[in-house]
Amino acid sequence: MKVGILGGGQLARMMIAAGRPMGLDFLVLDPASGVCAADYAPHVQTDWQAAASEPRLLDCDVITCDFENVPAAVLAQLAAHKPVYPGPQAFAAGQDRLDEKQLLDSLDIPLPGFSEVNARPDLLAAVERLGYPCVLKTRRLGYDGKGQKVLRTHEDLEPAWQTLGGQPLVLEAWVDYTHECALTAVRSRDGEIRHYAPSWTVHADGILKLALAPAPMAEATLAAGRAMVERLMNHLDYVGVLTLEMFHTPDGLLANEFAPRPHNSAHWTIEACICSQFENHLRAVCGLPLGATDSRQPALMFNWIGSLPSREAFLALPDLHWHDYGKTARAGRKIGHATWLVSNLAEFRSAQSDVRSLLEPQLATLFDRLLDDTA
Amino acid sequence: MKVGILGGGQLARMMIAAGRPMGLDFLVLDPASGVCAADYAPHVQTDWQAAASEPRLLDCDVITCDFENVPAAVLAQLAAHKPVYPGPQAFAAGQDRLDEKQLLDSLDIPLPGFSEVNARPDLLAAVERLGYPCVLKTRRLGYDGKGQKVLRTHEDLEPAWQTLGGQPLVLEAWVDYTHECALTAVRSRDGEIRHYAPSWTVHADGILKLALAPAPMAEATLAAGRAMVERLMNHLDYVGVLTLEMFHTPDGLLANEFAPRPHNSAHWTIEACICSQFENHLRAVCGLPLGATDSRQPALMFNWIGSLPSREAFLALPDLHWHDYGKTARAGRKIGHATWLVSNLAEFRSAQSDVRSLLEPQLATLFDRLLDDTA
Repeated sequence: MKVGILGGGQLARMMIAAGRPMGLDFLVLDPASGVCAADYAPHVQTDWQAAASEPRLLDCDVITCDFENVPAAVLAQLAAHKPVYPGPQAFAAGQDRLDEKQLLDSLDIPLPGFSEVNARPDLLAAVERLGYPCVLKTRRLGYDGKGQKVLRTHEDLEPAWQTLGGQPLVLEAWVDYTHECALTAVRSRDGEIRHYAPSWTVHADGILKLALAPAPMAEATLAAGRAMVERLMNHLDYVGVLTLEMFHTPDGLLANEFAPRPHNSAHWTIEACICSQFENHLRAVCGLPLGATDSRQPALMFNWIGSLPSREAFLALPDLHWHDYGKTARAGRKIGHATWLVSNLAEFRSAQSDVRSLLEPQLATLFDRLLDDTA
Repeated sequence: MKVGILGGGQLARMMIAAGRPMGLDFLVLDPASGVCAADYAPHVQTDWQAAASEPRLLDCDVITCDFENVPAAVLAQLAAHKPVYPGPQAFAAGQDRLDEKQLLDSLDIPLPGFSEVNARPDLLAAVERLGYPCVLKTRRLGYDGKGQKVLRTHEDLEPAWQTLGGQPLVLEAWVDYTHECALTAVRSRDGEIRHYAPSWTVHADGILKLALAPAPMAEATLAAGRAMVERLMNHLDYVGVLTLEMFHTPDGLLANEFAPRPHNSAHWTIEACICSQFENHLRAVCGLPLGATDSRQPALMFNWIGSLPSREAFLALPDLHWHDYGKTARAGRKIGHATWLVSNLAEFRSAQSDVRSLLEPQLATLFDRLLDDTA
């Protein structure tokens, strides 16, 4: 069975690593040259539009994505010929922030207030309704903090409009959350859903820096969050792994956005679970039985952004696993991660000193705060 | 850092899978076409003699092997230009059964009685000394039960001589062992040694069928066995993973043979340990810090010989991991394995029914016996 993957980044790379031992073959399609999944499988370099008629892709048994912004129309064209999982409808729903919010809202998934902004008067009315602070975002193609501006006072309106205006926008109410978290689950072709433990996620500069799992969470809160994920998956007739990113507030969980693919906040599943998010995504997509999603050990993931710290120093720590994506270092780019496993959550605090001394200052501060907040 | 691997079978394949996340690059050299590691890294197809001057191999930073019968002379030639780990001396010592036994004997590592057999009169004298039953083996190139004959009575002498005579042989005394086991350890460039849990191994038709770890073993017995492994590694100034295959007898452990590479009896380390034998082999070979060798969970490994059972059926079991080597099925060929993890050894017995029903009859019988013997 051959799996075609649209997008050849680290998610594709980790999918292929998980899939080969199951006897799966792979083809990667990506418009860029030198993508990191090309170390693992043949790479077809062509743009997204051409993908719809690419014979080597159409020769695959099933098609999936490592990137949420593959045009839904291209996926729809491919789906006329081959199974495409998750289906085009999951991408269509997620590629426009307004559509996504309206969908979540329609499924009784609580989320922060939002308003459509197409022209300057819309912005004024929306700010009036949602109040300061609030966040102005492009509806399309934003990720990792790109394409958004925080508005704290009336002074911020004009510069934000100058930067982002002239394209469809959405204004989001500010959420006074205690922390961010992410719920990841997998749904099979026949509708079975399995949940991974929740991740406690820490972002800075709009990009994920740390993820701890299982995130401490009240049972009722977790159950409510999982029910939201299930409503979303079932509505989309979703097949594969999906992550719903959430704000944890004193009043419960509010949805932020979902990703129709394996997600950075669940990379810890590679070491901590019998069946990682990558393996389960492929099992679902290929119609194989789902694997166990239980966590065997608590895990803390560090993202390496822009540059890798010393591999030798981290490999000397006994319970850390290293992931170099084979990408060229560049500011703001995700080029690797490490996963630290312990026997119980308290151990992160008791065993922290060796790890902490190896972190760059910003990450060390976030790490300290995470350990304090989850104590 | 680029690692050249001589031999492109499943051991090379699993090494590459373990090494890429550490940022290592690979080149595989093998005289055969279509080797299974070629799915994971570029493959140079050339014979062993030509390997010694192959520029793409000499361009690697370090050279290792997935096959114990790479000619030691070729490794010695390569070692004049690049680091070769484990070193040629480990291969030279292991490629001749008589040399191997004499080495083990010289290191006070107990082993079954043996005699050199070069001519028919030697055989008669050797049988006289060691008694029946005994095993006549070629000194070179035997593996997985090939190149050996069991002698039970005087009647067996002539047919065995007809089959094996005319080449250097060794006669081995029969050992009345309770079971076979294997000790795997890793030694770094600077001489640090870390041990994995012992494996209880079950062979049939001269080939490994099952491995259970940690093997139940008296503490003093294990300590004695590990001391043997350390004497051997230190004597050879060994770098990398080594397995010493042993007979467990009422009087203690007797050495059978050693393998200068990751070994089939320790494949369970992929799932059960933080750092698998493949990752630790590469860490040692590349001069990186060694990783943790502790077992997190008991594991039982099934070898798939000749053909794969139903992938779908095994993937439906919650705690099993599947390994398809991507090799063409052929009688007697190792083409995959599965590792079953549990919380404690007793659970193998309580949870056995689902697994057992999927095994072919011979393997099911061996499995039953293993669970009885380790109860």
